[in-house]
Amino acid sequence: MNKFLELALAGVQQLVPYVPGKPVEELQRELGLSEVIKLASNENPLGTGAKVTAAIQATLPELTRYPDGSGFSLKTALSQKWGIAPEQITLGNGSSEILELVMRTFVAPEHDVVFSQHAFALYPILTQAVGAQARVVPAREFGHDLAAMLAAVTEKTRVVFIANPNNPTGTLLGPQDVENFIAALPVHVLCVLDEAYYEFVDPAVRTESLHWPQRYPNLIITRTFSKAYGLAGMRIGYGISSVDVADLLNRVRQPFNSNMLALAAAEAALGDAAYLEETLAVNNAGMLQLTKAFQALGLAWIPSSGNFVSVDLKQNALPIYEALLSKGVIVRPVANYEMPSHLRVSIGTERENQLFIAALREVLGNV
Amino acid sequence: MNKFLELALAGVQQLVPYVPGKPVEELQRELGLSEVIKLASNENPLGTGAKVTAAIQATLPELTRYPDGSGFSLKTALSQKWGIAPEQITLGNGSSEILELVMRTFVAPEHDVVFSQHAFALYPILTQAVGAQARVVPAREFGHDLAAMLAAVTEKTRVVFIANPNNPTGTLLGPQDVENFIAALPVHVLCVLDEAYYEFVDPAVRTESLHWPQRYPNLIITRTFSKAYGLAGMRIGYGISSVDVADLLNRVRQPFNSNMLALAAAEAALGDAAYLEETLAVNNAGMLQLTKAFQALGLAWIPSSGNFVSVDLKQNALPIYEALLSKGVIVRPVANYEMPSHLRVSIGTERENQLFIAALREVLGNV
Repeated sequence: MNKFLELALAGVQQLVPYVPGKPVEELQRELGLSEVIKLASNENPLGTGAKVTAAIQATLPELTRYPDGSGFSLKTALSQKWGIAPEQITLGNGSSEILELVMRTFVAPEHDVVFSQHAFALYPILTQAVGAQARVVPAREFGHDLAAMLAAVTEKTRVVFIANPNNPTGTLLGPQDVENFIAALPVHVLCVLDEAYYEFVDPAVRTESLHWPQRYPNLIITRTFSKAYGLAGMRIGYGISSVDVADLLNRVRQPFNSNMLALAAAEAALGDAAYLEETLAVNNAGMLQLTKAFQALGLAWIPSSGNFVSVDLKQNALPIYEALLSKGVIVRPVANYEMPSHLRVSIGTERENQLFIAALREVLGNV
Repeated sequence: MNKFLELALAGVQQLVPYVPGKPVEELQRELGLSEVIKLASNENPLGTGAKVTAAIQATLPELTRYPDGSGFSLKTALSQKWGIAPEQITLGNGSSEILELVMRTFVAPEHDVVFSQHAFALYPILTQAVGAQARVVPAREFGHDLAAMLAAVTEKTRVVFIANPNNPTGTLLGPQDVENFIAALPVHVLCVLDEAYYEFVDPAVRTESLHWPQRYPNLIITRTFSKAYGLAGMRIGYGISSVDVADLLNRVRQPFNSNMLALAAAEAALGDAAYLEETLAVNNAGMLQLTKAFQALGLAWIPSSGNFVSVDLKQNALPIYEALLSKGVIVRPVANYEMPSHLRVSIGTERENQLFIAALREVLGNV
């Protein structure tokens, strides 16, 4: 029994931390495997881009200095790329920190927070951490039910999370539906539109939300460099909102929350159109490769707009996950998302996908 | 008027962010100066160490992967170096994040937080951010008055901050005084012993506190890689506490709060004894160089155990700060610490110290 538990805040006492994907080194240590394929954390399979490497190399001599706490250079680059004001931007130690800052700025134990069933696991954790009440709205075919979410908003609701596309389902909402939802929200409710997987969405059906905060000052869009830009290890993401909201989030963040190499790497990644293009090409090809294989195996999957896909094994997926592990293939069980028969698989390189498919075929043949 | 101000939590509404030292690039931009000396943020003047550079280079190909959220490798190294259990360690995005985690884990608006006048500026900011009441205890000769701090503790006190040495005064408490203080604290009060400048203290008078959490489970010691280890830009620090307290802090932190290159760099820095030794030699020589110059100028200073010294100009220090800026020398005004006649100067290289002294001599001659 933890002797300090009762001194902790009520929300913290109930907190069950996020479980990350199993690290490659850990599985190698455990099983003595030489090759391990990790398709468990929606990471970019291309490896670090050359422009990012060069930007970090150039910054290495400066590490004894504090980072620029204002993020001047990266904010300028983002502002120019997206046609928004630098004052609308909040930089974070990953976009997950932006989600956290919103909670710490606006949400107290007397408030409630609305999000969808099957939505990103940090939403309930962050709600719990500030001791607020989660209002989890049942999903419709694994996607957000926006009408039901709107109906779930009360006087006490302070934040609504919309993940578009959602992780781990990959489900996508259309631009008109998202905008109608935001327009219908009372202004005392902040809408966090989590666009961590924005870049992977087909431009024909993608929601272009970055100019909406001018119309909807209660909207906060979050983006990350962890996925399509390939910087998961660097921890850098951002929020775009009205200047008023950004001002408050920037007051709450630590003065040096974004590290120096992350700032430099993100700016380089933002300017590396070729890397992004290759990322999307590899992702599209890999998605086809995986879904074709699922079809051949007679497996259903949730159509995904992200860099991952959740496949339905029509049985408890945990033994399959473990059998894959023993073959050196790490994917993600999603029972904690109320999806006990699914596994979420990140899109890898052609070879990684191939190795996963072969392992899955073997495992299913043995079940 | 910020339209969202009244939606923000009460503590956040009053929040005035920490003001960092002026970045070198900013002053260069403003004044068109080619050479700027920054002695404003207690940064290591040696530049990035070779072992750190090598460790980062070796990790660069991995940036698309998430960091090891458990910090296994760095925690193992710290555990071996200090003879403590890995489960006692909490890693943070700078030790400032550990300070923040303590507040977010244990402190609510109904609590109060005790710290000293002239103590590190983040303590009041963090107290404000969670909406708690600050009990600021008057200093004695710029140092912590431990008896008065103990007397200030009430039923509502949840955290006491002790900075040893303190920034910006450089004042040091002796081991026996610190231990007596902690032993006398009620167990419902968490004592944060902030040892950001630990390495700079003369070993003969240094407090060796790392094994104390076994006796005092309400003690949390914080250390950083930003100062003596030269990694301010990387944002990595840690807390050492009882396993129970560390368990709670680790529940509240973000799963990937420490970035991958910071973890690798910190581990390399921890193993670079030569860099640390040179850092201390340069600091000791520089402290002598600066204080001799102050003496020659007839200026008093607060004897400092850190890598900085606060000099008393016996007049409003702000015009002197600004005159130094115009000569390309950045130091730190500390009026926000209720020290309006002092300037805090970080110890630089011999040449940087020399340039600062020459500029100060000129400026004072002109006043």
